[in-house]
Amino acid sequence: MPTQTTDFAELRATLDLSMIGQEIYALMGELYPICRSITGDGFRQTLARLKKEILLEVHEVPSGTQVFDWTVPREWNIRDAYVKNSSGERVIDFRRHNLHVVNYSVPIHRKMSLAQLRPHLHTLPDQPDLIPYRTSYYKENWGFCLSHQQLEQMLEDEYEVCIDSTLEDGHLTYGECLLKGSSAEEVLISCHSCHPSLCNDNLSGVAVATFLSKHLAQVPLRYSYRFLFIPGTIGSITWLSMNEDRAHAIRHGLVLTCLGDRGHITYKKSRRGDAVIDRAMTHVLKHSGHAYDIQDFSPYGYDERQYCSPGFNLPVGCLMRTPHGKFPEYHSSADNMELMRPASLADSLSMCLSTFYILEKSLCYMNRNPRCEPQLGKRGLYRAMGGHRDEKLQETAMLWVLNQSDGSHSLLDIAERSELAFDTVKDAADMLLQHSLLKECADQAAAPTA
Amino acid sequence: MPTQTTDFAELRATLDLSMIGQEIYALMGELYPICRSITGDGFRQTLARLKKEILLEVHEVPSGTQVFDWTVPREWNIRDAYVKNSSGERVIDFRRHNLHVVNYSVPIHRKMSLAQLRPHLHTLPDQPDLIPYRTSYYKENWGFCLSHQQLEQMLEDEYEVCIDSTLEDGHLTYGECLLKGSSAEEVLISCHSCHPSLCNDNLSGVAVATFLSKHLAQVPLRYSYRFLFIPGTIGSITWLSMNEDRAHAIRHGLVLTCLGDRGHITYKKSRRGDAVIDRAMTHVLKHSGHAYDIQDFSPYGYDERQYCSPGFNLPVGCLMRTPHGKFPEYHSSADNMELMRPASLADSLSMCLSTFYILEKSLCYMNRNPRCEPQLGKRGLYRAMGGHRDEKLQETAMLWVLNQSDGSHSLLDIAERSELAFDTVKDAADMLLQHSLLKECADQAAAPTA
Amino acid sequence: MPTQTTDFAELRATLDLSMIGQEIYALMGELYPICRSITGDGFRQTLARLKKEILLEVHEVPSGTQVFDWTVPREWNIRDAYVKNSSGERVIDFRRHNLHVVNYSVPIHRKMSLAQLRPHLHTLPDQPDLIPYRTSYYKENWGFCLSHQQLEQMLEDEYEVCIDSTLEDGHLTYGECLLKGSSAEEVLISCHSCHPSLCNDNLSGVAVATFLSKHLAQVPLRYSYRFLFIPGTIGSITWLSMNEDRAHAIRHGLVLTCLGDRGHITYKKSRRGDAVIDRAMTHVLKHSGHAYDIQDFSPYGYDERQYCSPGFNLPVGCLMRTPHGKFPEYHSSADNMELMRPASLADSLSMCLSTFYILEKSLCYMNRNPRCEPQLGKRGLYRAMGGHRDEKLQETAMLWVLNQSDGSHSLLDIAERSELAFDTVKDAADMLLQHSLLKECADQAAAPTA
Repeated sequence: MPTQTTDFAELRATLDLSMIGQEIYALMGELYPICRSITGDGFRQTLARLKKEILLEVHEVPSGTQVFDWTVPREWNIRDAYVKNSSGERVIDFRRHNLHVVNYSVPIHRKMSLAQLRPHLHTLPDQPDLIPYRTSYYKENWGFCLSHQQLEQMLEDEYEVCIDSTLEDGHLTYGECLLKGSSAEEVLISCHSCHPSLCNDNLSGVAVATFLSKHLAQVPLRYSYRFLFIPGTIGSITWLSMNEDRAHAIRHGLVLTCLGDRGHITYKKSRRGDAVIDRAMTHVLKHSGHAYDIQDFSPYGYDERQYCSPGFNLPVGCLMRTPHGKFPEYHSSADNMELMRPASLADSLSMCLSTFYILEKSLCYMNRNPRCEPQLGKRGLYRAMGGHRDEKLQETAMLWVLNQSDGSHSLLDIAERSELAFDTVKDAADMLLQHSLLKECADQAAAPTA
Repeated sequence: MPTQTTDFAELRATLDLSMIGQEIYALMGELYPICRSITGDGFRQTLARLKKEILLEVHEVPSGTQVFDWTVPREWNIRDAYVKNSSGERVIDFRRHNLHVVNYSVPIHRKMSLAQLRPHLHTLPDQPDLIPYRTSYYKENWGFCLSHQQLEQMLEDEYEVCIDSTLEDGHLTYGECLLKGSSAEEVLISCHSCHPSLCNDNLSGVAVATFLSKHLAQVPLRYSYRFLFIPGTIGSITWLSMNEDRAHAIRHGLVLTCLGDRGHITYKKSRRGDAVIDRAMTHVLKHSGHAYDIQDFSPYGYDERQYCSPGFNLPVGCLMRTPHGKFPEYHSSADNMELMRPASLADSLSMCLSTFYILEKSLCYMNRNPRCEPQLGKRGLYRAMGGHRDEKLQETAMLWVLNQSDGSHSLLDIAERSELAFDTVKDAADMLLQHSLLKECADQAAAPTA
Repeated sequence: MPTQTTDFAELRATLDLSMIGQEIYALMGELYPICRSITGDGFRQTLARLKKEILLEVHEVPSGTQVFDWTVPREWNIRDAYVKNSSGERVIDFRRHNLHVVNYSVPIHRKMSLAQLRPHLHTLPDQPDLIPYRTSYYKENWGFCLSHQQLEQMLEDEYEVCIDSTLEDGHLTYGECLLKGSSAEEVLISCHSCHPSLCNDNLSGVAVATFLSKHLAQVPLRYSYRFLFIPGTIGSITWLSMNEDRAHAIRHGLVLTCLGDRGHITYKKSRRGDAVIDRAMTHVLKHSGHAYDIQDFSPYGYDERQYCSPGFNLPVGCLMRTPHGKFPEYHSSADNMELMRPASLADSLSMCLSTFYILEKSLCYMNRNPRCEPQLGKRGLYRAMGGHRDEKLQETAMLWVLNQSDGSHSLLDIAERSELAFDTVKDAADMLLQHSLLKECADQAAAPTA
């Protein structure tokens, strides 16, 4: 459990990443068996578990609600599903793996030949031992998914096919957690939480978001942080439709997905391309000491598609490790707990916290002695004996902050221009503030990147 | 002969490039023997031949007319020219090749020694079997051009030197063809048509322009297309001087030259450097699958020098294959029909049509559902069964068009940002228009690149 | 001695760099033995020597004067200093090398053991045969510098330690030389002149500045040139503090330092990064035919730190050869006359003159025939006989100047875009002016880069 910390810097300094990685992994393990979909009780169970960790408000939106160009679908629930052979054996059994049923399958119960069943069976011939993940949200259909190996062993027979599901008017459910900061301006963290037993995509995002919220709740914040646990696509559309007047308060945002595999971090920029979140995340990754990729925005991917639609154009990027479709286990039964690395989960969380720290702290300052340098030496901020020219990093950072603090450059701007780490620049600014050599700009909102 | 087509897209789809290459080549073959200059009957004959292909208005501008800083020169005509040796043999004979006479030579008929004749003989010592091309438009002079081999064989003798030319007040002639589109805004296509028996420079440009006009005349057009068949330099200066009030209507333009050799395409940008014609041509070449070069503007070359002079600064680039001076046959008798490749001529025409297609079709649209994506699935525009993540190109293009169509991005902008081919983006926009998901912007003129 | 020349172009053309290199070197040789500091008689002696070369105004600013955040320090003077062993031998002797005393050492005279003396002895263990250069301007202290070899040979003994210095209220001295041009706008040349027997850092800058002033004084100038011979840091702060109302007149500036070693030129840009001085110097170096480095601005280095502080943000860069700290002799007794290359000193001066020449001459012009090209041929500016396509450089330059001279491009802009040398572009502009094809823009101050 995180201990009460006094501020964000201390939170970062005292994080036990090894322990947090294990905690995130453990939470994923509990959520893994639940059969989630974009609506229904699996989604509700998932939120119920998260409520043990964080303050979560659960919203229910009735089926049929118009949300922009879309309609909230009927609610899907499933109790059981199987294909039995003529000996009564369950050759395909939902109880063994919830991926065995095409998500959103309509109910069916009848006997049929293999030839009749065959068009409803989905496999991955190139990965013959994996069960694929298939959905049919917006077209009524039913089907089973199984390994290609298993399919090849199925004999001609009379099969009993049963999907004990319901697709009826009900609700779309989502969870929302708002950590209030001193400002009404918001940082949005969004994760699709609708996939059944799939880990990287996207229990990893759900669990990392949960622990981000849990830790950020311990410290005073400048921004308010809004966490959304939503079904993919329809969830973000629903939220935006019902919160159109709130969207303008979102100053920065991240969609979290695929955060647990062993790959390095990939950050996909917002549609704006030069938003502060894009620059802050790039800065963190550049100074992380690890490999990373930065991708330009594209209008396919996850819920950033909706946040970055032209009518909203919110500064929301997407953080992932290996992108969807680029790891072989993607959308199959192999996207399971074995694929997950606690260290990756913890590192993903840590990159988010470092980025949020920049968002919080990248203020604009004014040098109180803008004409020529102030005399650092008489304040004990400079080595007294000149001549040693191996300039120390901290002095360098102080000189950069003083030189650039004309009210139009944020600390992130200064870190970018100086190529120093944000933390170094921030420490220098703090030291200069302590010695009354800087002052905060009156109107941070007017600052270019704040 | 091109068949009547219903629209530009169909024109492009049904072009038989192999046949067109042969047709352009055949037209060049007919024009090749004519002795053209910047004025005179050779130019008129050339236009007369073009009138069989396209609607051409022939203009005659009197000698002495002041055109900006220049004066329309006297008209030059030539009937015969030779150098006879004392045996009465024509050792240099204009009837064998019109390059043998320095273009614009004043009349002369007298006997002289080789020593006296020698300063008037021009050769290419480094290419001893080629006849050079020389002119003396603005300084009265006379001369003969011959191969260096031939010069070396000329013996001391009394030679009869005859140039049966006239240089008298008359006219400068040029041809103009205007294809009216629905808009008064114009695309300018200009080619210098003043060279005698030289193919790449510039019968290739003349013939490609003729066939462009012939084909574009078959389809409805948004822009009006103005084709100018003019003498180099003095022709564009004359046209601009007499059409100063029309120049502002030119939205895009191309100078066509050296379009028939086997080299790859070279595009030289307009003085602006980022004009739509520059971007459209670059896009076409980038997606052509062939090698190409893009050159920055420079104030030497062809008539783009005049169109891009600072008082006009028109968005006019120059399309060529191997640039002037960069192929060894340049300005010599080797720039003949053998150098020409029908496939190159057809490819040059095709690149122009693809570029004009972009100019015509790169409108700005508004997404009618700017907040979140519209539901493509319910309109049959999206695969019903989710899960297959190998996103298809057409879907990708639709998402890009929807995402970027906020009224400030043209289809060319979208093609550039998405790195998709313009045609793919255009097809996506058409499909979205059909489904009422897009609308045209009210004021295309206000759009950044239209 | 430079002879009287009529203009700047002639000055550059007639410079005897070999002779100038020797002259600069000789001046450095005279200044080398003087023990300078940021105040005191050594500084005054230095200026007295420079007054023999150039018109120099000497300023004295009283100790205790408040200059922005700093205070002018007490004046330091030294007559003698030594460490004698018990045999009365001077084992460390200021008379042998003035680097032996920590600059600004307070007076001391007493006997002590080696152990007591040891904390006051400074060496360079990695360069055991060199004497380091150390200062203690702003913290009262005393000390000796010596080679590490010498230190290792010092035996336990009773040493007589004597520094016969004074640190008392007096003055800070600096020299100023203003060459008045036709405009009140200024070019600033600043060099720190406070180091004792150190050559590259910065007698090289002092001597090059002196000869720049000496030569520029011979020719009519558009800008006024202000040369400052000042103590580092406190000197520029003092000057800026006392001339706040004049600083706005500085249009371009250079800090000169480390100009005599064998390394190639390094130019560090002003804080603005795209100031005309930055572009002009870059242009000169690019066309110099020699290796060079361009560095982005950083707020550590020499007096550009003060000129580029945010309250002034003057367009002042720094010219050096090998930057401070990057040559092994830096701040040691090895930074002596042997390190200096007369050819490097002359080349440094030459690069400055070429850059100042651009500043002087990079005006904006208007093409008097902006619509189409003027006819160069009828003015004898173009080869009469067309066809030779090996365009000559001068014609190319004329076409560039005509094409770009729309009142918004300076000659430097044109040189940059055309990739021609500034001198070529300037010559072309002169020829066009002579033929009344250009006119000067009325308001050069309004021109983007003038």
